[in-house]
Amino acid sequence: MPLLVMKFGGTSVADLDRIANAAEKVKREVDRGYNVIVIVSAMAGKTNELVNWVEQTSHLYDAREYDAVVSSGENVTAGLMALRLQEMGIPARSWQGWQVPINTTSAHGAARFVSIPRDNIDRKFEEGMKVAVVAGFQGVSPEGRITTLGRGGSDTTAVAFAAAFGAERCDIYTDVDGVYTTDPRICSKARKLDKIAFEEMLELASLGAKVLQTRSVELAMRYKVRLRVLSSFEDTDENSGTLVCDEEEIMESKAVSGIAYSRDEAKITLVTVEDKPGIAAAIFGPLAEAGVNVDMIVQNISEKNYEGHSGAVTDMTFSCPINQVERAKKALQDARERGEIAYDDLVVDTEVAKVSVVGIGMRSQSGVAARMFKALADENINIKVIATSEIKVSVLIDRKYMELAVQALHDAFELDKTA
Amino acid sequence: MPLLVMKFGGTSVADLDRIANAAEKVKREVDRGYNVIVIVSAMAGKTNELVNWVEQTSHLYDAREYDAVVSSGENVTAGLMALRLQEMGIPARSWQGWQVPINTTSAHGAARFVSIPRDNIDRKFEEGMKVAVVAGFQGVSPEGRITTLGRGGSDTTAVAFAAAFGAERCDIYTDVDGVYTTDPRICSKARKLDKIAFEEMLELASLGAKVLQTRSVELAMRYKVRLRVLSSFEDTDENSGTLVCDEEEIMESKAVSGIAYSRDEAKITLVTVEDKPGIAAAIFGPLAEAGVNVDMIVQNISEKNYEGHSGAVTDMTFSCPINQVERAKKALQDARERGEIAYDDLVVDTEVAKVSVVGIGMRSQSGVAARMFKALADENINIKVIATSEIKVSVLIDRKYMELAVQALHDAFELDKTA
Repeated sequence: MPLLVMKFGGTSVADLDRIANAAEKVKREVDRGYNVIVIVSAMAGKTNELVNWVEQTSHLYDAREYDAVVSSGENVTAGLMALRLQEMGIPARSWQGWQVPINTTSAHGAARFVSIPRDNIDRKFEEGMKVAVVAGFQGVSPEGRITTLGRGGSDTTAVAFAAAFGAERCDIYTDVDGVYTTDPRICSKARKLDKIAFEEMLELASLGAKVLQTRSVELAMRYKVRLRVLSSFEDTDENSGTLVCDEEEIMESKAVSGIAYSRDEAKITLVTVEDKPGIAAAIFGPLAEAGVNVDMIVQNISEKNYEGHSGAVTDMTFSCPINQVERAKKALQDARERGEIAYDDLVVDTEVAKVSVVGIGMRSQSGVAARMFKALADENINIKVIATSEIKVSVLIDRKYMELAVQALHDAFELDKTA
Repeated sequence: MPLLVMKFGGTSVADLDRIANAAEKVKREVDRGYNVIVIVSAMAGKTNELVNWVEQTSHLYDAREYDAVVSSGENVTAGLMALRLQEMGIPARSWQGWQVPINTTSAHGAARFVSIPRDNIDRKFEEGMKVAVVAGFQGVSPEGRITTLGRGGSDTTAVAFAAAFGAERCDIYTDVDGVYTTDPRICSKARKLDKIAFEEMLELASLGAKVLQTRSVELAMRYKVRLRVLSSFEDTDENSGTLVCDEEEIMESKAVSGIAYSRDEAKITLVTVEDKPGIAAAIFGPLAEAGVNVDMIVQNISEKNYEGHSGAVTDMTFSCPINQVERAKKALQDARERGEIAYDDLVVDTEVAKVSVVGIGMRSQSGVAARMFKALADENINIKVIATSEIKVSVLIDRKYMELAVQALHDAFELDKTA
């Protein structure tokens, strides 16, 4: 019998009415002939309540106890969803992580899947169960303790089950109706995409389009799980939402599929750094140790040769989240005091934002960067840093121009029109 | 190393401050050299919230899912308590029912213990853990589903652990400071007892002194677990509260230890019943099937021999909770219609209450009943039904005299004075 995985996030199961609404969506798929594995999050707000209790109880808390407490929210939703389905006449039962079992590593609070044996759930399907409701976000360690995958981990649970059970598709029900060419709050012409490739989704997700957790998309890409993002709060059918899939399923791609942005960026420049082998490692090693998420890196070869600098010198520029600037400064100053690096000045610009154009089509179509730069130049937007990858071009610009840039690029790449 | 079991009920762990307060009491015992098993209830109100969700979701709910949902409240408290103890420097960890494992029957919602293997917890004690915090009220079935013991089951969990681990004592922390000679709200002279025998506590508990769940006292009596009831909200030491123990530990007993009452009683009389063998079974069989909790039964041999009654006749009187009267009437009327019993009239008196004097001392001291009847007669209180057992005498009286009767009996047996 064909199998679907359906995942409902916290806002989709926020109260009993919404659980009933989600159950209706499950019933529709059962009526179509599917066996269904439903992955549920905690009711909206419950996880935060539990996390607050833990944090108020203990300052440096034992992550094993954190997981034991916080995982209870999903258990409640799983039981209620199973009850609701039963009330509608559908054979269903709930599964907590240890009952499946969802075997994970012992990295409490950030556990990773080890295995999801199918036997227990398959046996129940064979006995006539139509829906297995699984508590998301949790698993069990080799020591028999409850683990959690970290916030947002229910998306990853859903993809892992879809992979383990060979599901036809993994439908992620959420509070948006799909993936857009860009953020509709910033650009009114933003258009919902019918399909998007895993690689594009990864770039859009990690760049701030918070529809799907990055890890879930990576897992889906690795196991070729067809993911669909769609709304819990609208009538949906088999064509609703956005399908995130292998690029082979996407017949024809534009050069650019979407425009991502990240508002809270900072740019840090180390002025007059000695340009010698190992200097990048000397700079970014301490930053990594300090937990700074360095994103773009640009090294400007400089011909300046000031007094006191015997060899060639350079300026080194990188970007990081704005709330990590102090940490980054301290790490670099400490490294300078230890004599590991030398620089004349450290210049911080906290008034920048990142805008990226993303598309697998740019692999085969040239001129994307040039078209991007021209669109920004036409609006008199100055580009501070450029970084490119195979399927994206990112720029740092003044934050005040961010919305204008997104709109201009959306127009320039004609994203309001279907391919 | 000596071991204590300490149990904290819902009001004792109602919020983080109270959990911290309970943790202080645990620390005191650890400092005295004990290993401790702490049994916790859900934070007050949480279980009701979960039960309401289940009942709103499903009318005839699947008890297995009910248990999966409702048990989550205790899991949260167990984790928070373990965290709080760790924060105080005490090696502690939480245990959910399936982790111990607490093996129970599959009678979901009313499961009974099958076994509590010590291995897992003992191993952790050997490794240096000082406190095992166990979620009360739950277990795991042979099928691997979560079970619950029914409301109030955390007391029973505590006693079962005390028995399984050979604990020196099982301390039940609650919102009262011990067991009293009678209800202090009714009789201002009520005095806290230092010790009470299991049998007495059973009579007091089942008669309405709701300090301990009956089943937990039965279990404690069977395994000779010394139970102590004491307050979470007061400073307590090794002499606080009331010890519920084997009667051999009680050096000297008064004839009467306490006075119990039950306000919501009803008296039902079947008038002119044929007095023949099997008549009691014919009456009380249908009542039992209808789930009526019949308490006192009195059969008045009557010499009346009315027209239409060939043999001897009798009146049969029994008492039951007032909210079961309609059920009882229907069961009896149905039995009459089926021709299984015959009676002239069914008279219901819903204005009665039960008052009982309880004491293991009455086994060896005579005259208790006479002294009781005289005290009631002195207050002009009419006795409607009398029932006696080895360690108690109960009477049904008009409800309006109940408080007066309790006070009069408390004085008559000098319960305000220590033995």
